[in-house]
Amino acid sequence: MKALVLHEINRISIDDIDIKEEMGPEDVKIAMKAVGICGSDIHYYKNGKIGGFVVKEPMILGHEASGTVIEAGANVKGLKPGDRVCMEPGIPDPGSRATMLGIYNLDPGVRFWATPPVHGCLRETVVHPAMFTFKLPDNLGFDEGALIEPMAIGLHACTKAGIKPGDTALVLGCGTIGLVTAICALSAGCSRVIITDIKAEKLELAKKYGIMTVHAESESVLETVKEVTDGWGVDVIFEATGNEKVIADIFTPLCPGGPVILIGMPVDPAPIDVVAAQIKEACIKPIFRYAHMYPRAVALAGSGKVDLKPLVTDRFSFSDSIKAFENAANPRPDMVKTVIEM
Amino acid sequence: MKALVLHEINRISIDDIDIKEEMGPEDVKIAMKAVGICGSDIHYYKNGKIGGFVVKEPMILGHEASGTVIEAGANVKGLKPGDRVCMEPGIPDPGSRATMLGIYNLDPGVRFWATPPVHGCLRETVVHPAMFTFKLPDNLGFDEGALIEPMAIGLHACTKAGIKPGDTALVLGCGTIGLVTAICALSAGCSRVIITDIKAEKLELAKKYGIMTVHAESESVLETVKEVTDGWGVDVIFEATGNEKVIADIFTPLCPGGPVILIGMPVDPAPIDVVAAQIKEACIKPIFRYAHMYPRAVALAGSGKVDLKPLVTDRFSFSDSIKAFENAANPRPDMVKTVIEM
Amino acid sequence: MKALVLHEINRISIDDIDIKEEMGPEDVKIAMKAVGICGSDIHYYKNGKIGGFVVKEPMILGHEASGTVIEAGANVKGLKPGDRVCMEPGIPDPGSRATMLGIYNLDPGVRFWATPPVHGCLRETVVHPAMFTFKLPDNLGFDEGALIEPMAIGLHACTKAGIKPGDTALVLGCGTIGLVTAICALSAGCSRVIITDIKAEKLELAKKYGIMTVHAESESVLETVKEVTDGWGVDVIFEATGNEKVIADIFTPLCPGGPVILIGMPVDPAPIDVVAAQIKEACIKPIFRYAHMYPRAVALAGSGKVDLKPLVTDRFSFSDSIKAFENAANPRPDMVKTVIEM
Amino acid sequence: MKALVLHEINRISIDDIDIKEEMGPEDVKIAMKAVGICGSDIHYYKNGKIGGFVVKEPMILGHEASGTVIEAGANVKGLKPGDRVCMEPGIPDPGSRATMLGIYNLDPGVRFWATPPVHGCLRETVVHPAMFTFKLPDNLGFDEGALIEPMAIGLHACTKAGIKPGDTALVLGCGTIGLVTAICALSAGCSRVIITDIKAEKLELAKKYGIMTVHAESESVLETVKEVTDGWGVDVIFEATGNEKVIADIFTPLCPGGPVILIGMPVDPAPIDVVAAQIKEACIKPIFRYAHMYPRAVALAGSGKVDLKPLVTDRFSFSDSIKAFENAANPRPDMVKTVIEM
Repeated sequence: MKALVLHEINRISIDDIDIKEEMGPEDVKIAMKAVGICGSDIHYYKNGKIGGFVVKEPMILGHEASGTVIEAGANVKGLKPGDRVCMEPGIPDPGSRATMLGIYNLDPGVRFWATPPVHGCLRETVVHPAMFTFKLPDNLGFDEGALIEPMAIGLHACTKAGIKPGDTALVLGCGTIGLVTAICALSAGCSRVIITDIKAEKLELAKKYGIMTVHAESESVLETVKEVTDGWGVDVIFEATGNEKVIADIFTPLCPGGPVILIGMPVDPAPIDVVAAQIKEACIKPIFRYAHMYPRAVALAGSGKVDLKPLVTDRFSFSDSIKAFENAANPRPDMVKTVIEM
Repeated sequence: MKALVLHEINRISIDDIDIKEEMGPEDVKIAMKAVGICGSDIHYYKNGKIGGFVVKEPMILGHEASGTVIEAGANVKGLKPGDRVCMEPGIPDPGSRATMLGIYNLDPGVRFWATPPVHGCLRETVVHPAMFTFKLPDNLGFDEGALIEPMAIGLHACTKAGIKPGDTALVLGCGTIGLVTAICALSAGCSRVIITDIKAEKLELAKKYGIMTVHAESESVLETVKEVTDGWGVDVIFEATGNEKVIADIFTPLCPGGPVILIGMPVDPAPIDVVAAQIKEACIKPIFRYAHMYPRAVALAGSGKVDLKPLVTDRFSFSDSIKAFENAANPRPDMVKTVIEM
Repeated sequence: MKALVLHEINRISIDDIDIKEEMGPEDVKIAMKAVGICGSDIHYYKNGKIGGFVVKEPMILGHEASGTVIEAGANVKGLKPGDRVCMEPGIPDPGSRATMLGIYNLDPGVRFWATPPVHGCLRETVVHPAMFTFKLPDNLGFDEGALIEPMAIGLHACTKAGIKPGDTALVLGCGTIGLVTAICALSAGCSRVIITDIKAEKLELAKKYGIMTVHAESESVLETVKEVTDGWGVDVIFEATGNEKVIADIFTPLCPGGPVILIGMPVDPAPIDVVAAQIKEACIKPIFRYAHMYPRAVALAGSGKVDLKPLVTDRFSFSDSIKAFENAANPRPDMVKTVIEM
Repeated sequence: MKALVLHEINRISIDDIDIKEEMGPEDVKIAMKAVGICGSDIHYYKNGKIGGFVVKEPMILGHEASGTVIEAGANVKGLKPGDRVCMEPGIPDPGSRATMLGIYNLDPGVRFWATPPVHGCLRETVVHPAMFTFKLPDNLGFDEGALIEPMAIGLHACTKAGIKPGDTALVLGCGTIGLVTAICALSAGCSRVIITDIKAEKLELAKKYGIMTVHAESESVLETVKEVTDGWGVDVIFEATGNEKVIADIFTPLCPGGPVILIGMPVDPAPIDVVAAQIKEACIKPIFRYAHMYPRAVALAGSGKVDLKPLVTDRFSFSDSIKAFENAANPRPDMVKTVIEM
């Protein structure tokens, strides 16, 4: 079948490949319909590695995906050929200690699409466990199905934050993940969400979602927080820049006892002002991917409480995949998500 | 000043009374503008008591209230004459063990409006601690300000439930508290809320809020839950009927490990199927009023995420208070909240 | 092999049976060494059923067990022939929703020893998943290994209670489970544990563990609690009688906001004073077996912080199993646990 | 009265001073009996400041204290002259937002003994709110009463960690706070506590408490953790060195999803390996002093579960206070706590 293969840094191509994927009795086979391009796809494309994960063999890219079931294993219940679905891209070891404890995202044995040496899903079909394949409601298109993946990250961040109804949240960074986290935070009970970025264009789409925006260079985040919270501080902070300088000063706008969710991944160790964190007993929660979030994300998007459509700013056909990657690697300021339609 | 006084069972009148209320440096004086009639007001009116709380002396009724600040104590910050406000009706002992632990609603020393022997607020002015007086945003009217009180109950229920984004909730009973809890549950992150009642008219307003309704006599709650949750059960149940029969069978629609929030107050001990609760490890949380919820309720209502206006179905002027109580004591099926405008 | 088989109510015998148990690659085969007799074994023996679980076919009894590994499957790590072990008696479906969420004890598909139609372990050998087989430290004997099972219940109760260091706990009922819960509560951080029973002999062993005892008929639990807690109430209550009358009045000794853990299983629905529970916002947690507790129980017993030895008051050889069951079915007041040594 | 006064860096003296302390109706007056010397006392003595807290005026030192009540205010219940007590040194504003939420240690208005500009308690008498004065049980001496203060820090750390029974904890640093935290962790439910330090003498006392010790230079913490936890990692880590290098590598011995409690206060921002923390979703909890811990610490020490006596390694009379401070400022390797007896 045809697949988008990363051969080495800066070299991707649409190849005819031969993947042997056995269908187990608990699996489904899916014809891919839409795949979003994630920052990590671009990172592997341009750098060949993320941290300790190094691309050594040609690897198919892509992990934000939706499609149509074309075959269902003997024991599969609840899914049948023709069903429109989205797929959770990480498959943990079912008997591992982390999985049994309910934190399967932390299982070191997870096999995650397009994380070396595991192939991704930018190809014609995939075989996937039914347990990690979720039916899309009629009112969600394939593009939105692909966006369930980044939404799951935002939702996991919100769940870890333990948002209480009426909270005020501050999201640092208005890239795709920051924006989707802010949208999730509103749907998760926040009365107000403030988002900041240094690029004004990024903030425009946030405004349409009813999110307060602060341009981090021309406006003061701290002053806005003080005014909005009567000096108490925001109830929760989401860090979505991965920028060391942002992390260095992260506790100042926080209320006493509030959580700080670290979503962004800084390349190097980031200096933290421990004493500032202690005086407020900030609860710092670094998060990794998500667990148990797909059904929740599908339910919220399906209910209409979260509208993912405006996030898809760029569309390409599969045959234009290379162009799509070039486009995503050199983003316009107003670009959010590029989706490849199969 | 004029006040609505309950003298004995079935006898209320508008009297000229002389209440000495000293202004402390942390207090504000408020001219009342709107007071909602609560089920407990009606209960005292018709029965003279609720549980151990017995009306022995004439008592002013009313505790759901909003008004305008007309005087502010010397140490008060953040409030000044002219400010439109709503007031939290229960004042705990600031140094009590429960208050220090953050659970001031459980302080046995709480003084709560219109709970004997404490006078309520259906009168021209009240003196109230600034700490329990909350400014209304411009887009909330006095009627909505009065409804912050029942909303605080619904919000406390949702907070205790620990709603996670994407949850499905079931609310048993579509009276004012059930309805407001369902509305709060949607705003607190639920993707779906199902509400049931035996009176079809009660369910109509719920539908307008996007809440799924089940008529408890002609439809099956259990079948609806099974279908909506693929047999797993709802993530959280709110009991808002206080009806023993409803409580007897309450664990059947619940998912494993889910919370059951008991808001309704049954008159007698209610039989609970402990083994059914054990098999699911249902976490049963009876709740009492609220703590720390007023600022959250004001923020959510002010943000537009919760619209309280449709809940006010009946309005009376203060001079028609007796008529208002008779109206509320003999409710039409479609009646939700009666508000007395001062 | 030889096994103790329950044929019908009141009829057990040691039979030669032929059980086909296939060893999978993740399994171990264990030669049984000690099996404790649990209340549920006696219940099946004398009543033929517990709730909906009815003994329809001859069933081997026993689920509190320890033994020696005699064979290990190909993929088994960490266990080898000769290892002394105890075994968790319930095996959930690894891919079930409850299991993935970390609450495998609530998986409806759990297969639990000696719960119809699943055979128990009062036999020469069992095949068991290595994942649910735990190595005993050198300082724990086989008897203590068998007692890890009831200890796991007590530990699960304490974990659900969220005991904080310095808490005062009240345990209602000084049977095996009540006693083991009290012992666990001390090891889990309580500064004081109070236990009550109507049989004075039961309380004697508790005293040796440093547990305060109250004879429920000749002394006042409430007065003791008031005195010990300066009127505040105990921080946590464990219900281990299953007695309706005990449950009816269970909130009186509790502090505001405290948890009530329901371990005992009342035959019929138990009336609960909901309003009394609401005024304190008691958090009522019915519990069912345990999850993830075996390694914790083995660690605590192995560390010497929990001494299980004094709990074994009666010992029988396997050939005297019938006598052992009769003995356990007609307990002396000072009897705690009967163990059958294989 | 006589008091130990810090005049400027390196200059302390016993002076006759005149402090006007008014007794309110909720206060008690206490004759001091024992005062422990804390690291912060030494820090002010040798550096004149801690972070933003600068000694500008002469200040009495000391905040770890016990004594005897000599006068009780009119409204005081539960305390009377002659009672032996220990005192919580920080007094929050009772009506502050943090206090009302139950997190009074985070109230910016806290007045804490011997934190400029608030005088400490190394003097003949103090007036203190009864609410923050705790009766000592008969079996606790004044020395142990003074040590309730550092114990409260350890207990707060353990409470924040949410220790579950059977946990394995790792404590980094075996100074007074590290040691007391390790002792508290054992009493709070840990089956095993490992402590490390670079000074072998410090570890000797830990061994007597049944704590596993690792000499951080000659032994491998990581290897010990791997062996003890079968490669899973410890359930909780307590950082009690404040050393940047220790913090840099802190997530390696941790299990997936575990908490890291930051007690030590590094002088400068400490680089944190965010990605290492993310892969495990380590929950990082910096803590500050304590709230609601005194009654718990007194209960645990009084119950005999925590023995504070061996921690007092050096004793001086009040007249030798200067010698006591010099002694504490130049600690022998085996020195833990210096107590001044009044």
